[in-house]
Amino acid sequence: MVFQVAAEMAPFLFEHFGNPSSGHTYGKMVHFTSCGTESDNWAIYGAVMAARRAQLPQSQSQSQSPQRAPPPALLLPHVVTTAIEHPAVLGHLKHLQEQGLLSYTAVPVDSEGLVDPEQIAAAVQPNTALVTVMHSNNEVGAVQPIAEIAAAARRAHARFTSSTSSSSSSGGCTGTNGLLVHSDAAQSTGKVELDVRTLGVDALTIVGHKFGAPKGVAALYIRRGVHLDNYFHGGGQEGGRRAGTENIMQVVGLGAAAELARREGPRLRRHLGDMAERLMEALRAGLRPEDQDKLRLNGPRQPASRLPNTLSLSIRGLNSAVALQRLSGQLAASAGAACHSGEAASVSAVLRAMRVPFEFAAGTLRLSTGRHTTAEEVDAAAKLIVQEARRQGVLG
Amino acid sequence: MVFQVAAEMAPFLFEHFGNPSSGHTYGKMVHFTSCGTESDNWAIYGAVMAARRAQLPQSQSQSQSPQRAPPPALLLPHVVTTAIEHPAVLGHLKHLQEQGLLSYTAVPVDSEGLVDPEQIAAAVQPNTALVTVMHSNNEVGAVQPIAEIAAAARRAHARFTSSTSSSSSSGGCTGTNGLLVHSDAAQSTGKVELDVRTLGVDALTIVGHKFGAPKGVAALYIRRGVHLDNYFHGGGQEGGRRAGTENIMQVVGLGAAAELARREGPRLRRHLGDMAERLMEALRAGLRPEDQDKLRLNGPRQPASRLPNTLSLSIRGLNSAVALQRLSGQLAASAGAACHSGEAASVSAVLRAMRVPFEFAAGTLRLSTGRHTTAEEVDAAAKLIVQEARRQGVLG
Repeated sequence: MVFQVAAEMAPFLFEHFGNPSSGHTYGKMVHFTSCGTESDNWAIYGAVMAARRAQLPQSQSQSQSPQRAPPPALLLPHVVTTAIEHPAVLGHLKHLQEQGLLSYTAVPVDSEGLVDPEQIAAAVQPNTALVTVMHSNNEVGAVQPIAEIAAAARRAHARFTSSTSSSSSSGGCTGTNGLLVHSDAAQSTGKVELDVRTLGVDALTIVGHKFGAPKGVAALYIRRGVHLDNYFHGGGQEGGRRAGTENIMQVVGLGAAAELARREGPRLRRHLGDMAERLMEALRAGLRPEDQDKLRLNGPRQPASRLPNTLSLSIRGLNSAVALQRLSGQLAASAGAACHSGEAASVSAVLRAMRVPFEFAAGTLRLSTGRHTTAEEVDAAAKLIVQEARRQGVLG
Repeated sequence: MVFQVAAEMAPFLFEHFGNPSSGHTYGKMVHFTSCGTESDNWAIYGAVMAARRAQLPQSQSQSQSPQRAPPPALLLPHVVTTAIEHPAVLGHLKHLQEQGLLSYTAVPVDSEGLVDPEQIAAAVQPNTALVTVMHSNNEVGAVQPIAEIAAAARRAHARFTSSTSSSSSSGGCTGTNGLLVHSDAAQSTGKVELDVRTLGVDALTIVGHKFGAPKGVAALYIRRGVHLDNYFHGGGQEGGRRAGTENIMQVVGLGAAAELARREGPRLRRHLGDMAERLMEALRAGLRPEDQDKLRLNGPRQPASRLPNTLSLSIRGLNSAVALQRLSGQLAASAGAACHSGEAASVSAVLRAMRVPFEFAAGTLRLSTGRHTTAEEVDAAAKLIVQEARRQGVLG
C-alpha cells in the first residue's frame, strides 16, 4: 500500500514539482490542512470566533481606527468536550480559555471509555457554540456514539433557543451557526465506516497518515452552509477558506490513500478485527482458570463500539514499562498513549478518566493489529506476554 | 536543482515513509510550518496573544470554571505594519482586529516602494507589541531597511517604557516581550543575504518553494528567549512550539534546498541581477529617444535596495492585460501580484500604495529572471515587449 501511494505521489515530486493547478479538483467541502492538529484547532477556533463575531457590533468590524476602545464584554462562547480528547482538542481549548476567549466543559466517560449522549446534552448551555467529541479513541479504541451525541446536543440547545425571545434569526445567542458539532475522526478513517450525514456532524477531522497517506497532510470537512472563521488568513486558496500555498504532492497522496482505503476497507477491517480477537483469545487460553480475572480488556465490550485494530490490555500487577523493555524487538506495543514529547510514561489520562484501578492501569499494554499481521505473529505475541507476566510473578 | 532536492526527498517517500525520528535534528530556533501563511499568522497571533497573556490576572489563567465572568477589558495590543504586506500579514491583522483582539497601523511607502524607518517609529505606541515589515516585496522587489526599521522601532518603544513607572520587569506595558520585530522574508531567501542578527529581528518567515524546496513547507525563526504564544496546540512536537505530526519528507526537501541555496547563492544572485539589468537595458535600447520617459521601472532605483530577479516595468498607456494575453507562450509575466483567488486583474495595492500614476500602473508587466534565464531570452523578451507596445500604438 505504501508503494502504491508513493507511486502516485512520485510524479509530483519529480515531474510536476510544485504545479498547483494540477490539484484543483478538490471536493468542495473538504479542506486540506497540514495535520490533524491544524484541523482540530481550526474547528474549535473557527466555531468560537464565528460565535464571537455574531456578537460584535457591525461598526466594530468595519472600524480601521487603531485608537478605538477595547471591545465590549462579550458573552463568552462555550464548548462541550470530553475528558479523553486528543491534546489538539484539549490543549487548544485550554489555550483559548486562558486567553479569555471561551469556556469549556469536559464531560467524563464511563468505565468502558464511552461518552453518554445525555451527559453531553446536560452540559450544553445557551452560549454553547460547539460540541467536539472524538470519533474513536486512540488508546482504548472506544468508538463514540457521535450520531446520538449530536442529536442530543442539538435537542438540548434547541430548548434554549425556542424558549427565549432572542433577536438572532437562526442560532440563538451564540451566533448564526447555533450549536455546531465537530468530531476528530483521526483514528477512525479506514478502520470503521464514516459517513458525515449519518454522523450528523458539521465538521470532521481526517488525518492522512492514519490510513496510508504520508505524514504532512490532513483535512477538515465542513458541512455546506456552516460558517467557521478561517484559521489561516492570507491568499484565497481552498475556496477562500484555508490560505497558504497548497501542498499538492501530499494532497495527491491523501487522495490515493483514500481511494485504496475505500476499496480495501471492508476486507482490511475484517482482518484487523479477526487478528485482535485471536490475540485476546490466545491470551485467555494461555492463562490458568484462577488467573482469568487478572486480565482486563480496556474499552467497550461490544465489538461494534470498538476500533477493530486497537487492544488495550491490562494484567493486574504487571510492570508494563519493564515488560515493554524486555519485549522490545519482538513486539511493538506501548504502555500508554503515544509519547508526544519524551515525557516519562505514567498512567494515561484516558485510563484515569475510565477509572481503571491503578494495579491494572500500571500493567497496561496497548497493542495494534495491522494490515500485515498474521495469525502466527498473534499467537507468538500472546505467548511472549504471558511468559513475561509469569517472569514478573504476576501470573501463575 | 529541482532534481537534487527531489533526490534527497525521494528516500523519505519510498523507504522511510513517515518515520519522524529521522528528522529530529532541527535547528533549535527554526520551527517548521506548512506554508509562509502559517509562519506569518503565527508570528502575529503569537506576539499579540503573548502581550494579552501578560495582562491577564494570574487566577484567570488557572481557572477551570466554565461559568466565570468574561475577562476584564484589556489594553488592546497594537501592531505596526506597512501598506504593502502580503495578505498573510494584512489579512490576519484585519481578522484579529475585527475580532477585537488587536489594533494596527499600516504605514505608507514612498514612490519607490520603500518604508521609512522614522515613519515606523512614529507609529509605535506604548501598547505596540509587534512591528511586522516584509523583507522584500514580491511585486516591485523593494528590499526594506529592516535593520534600521527594527532599531528605530525599538528606540521609539523604549521612550515609553523608560518614561513610565510600569511594574513590568522588561517589556513595559505590553507584556514580557516588550516590542517584537518580525519580517516576512518569503521573497528574499536565496535572492539576497539574510542574517537574522544583522537584521535585528525577533522572528523571520522563510518559505521553502521560494528557493527550490517543494511546496508545502516553510519555517518561522524565533529568536532564543522570545516568547510567542503557540499557534498550533496539541502534542509536544517542534520542542513544544508547533504541535502536529511533522512533515518529514518536506522538511528534508527544505533542508536540501537551503544547503544548495547557501552554496550556489552568490553565483545565482549575480546571474539573476545581470539578466534583469540586461533586460532593462535592452528595453531602453529598443525605445526611440522621445519615448524614453514612457518606460518606468517601479521600485527602488538603488540596486542594493532591490531583489536581483524582480522587474516591475510600466509602459505609459499600455494595456498590460492585452499584452500578456498576446505574449503568453512566449513570455512568462504577470500584470499585478499573483492572482490568489481568480479575481480579475486590477491595479495592484502595492502600485497604488506607491502612487504610480494610473496610465503607468495599468501598463505594468512584472518580469522575473531565473536560474536558467539566458541573455538570448532576455534580448528576445525585450523585443517582444517593445513590438507589442508599438502594436498597441503607445510607442513610436
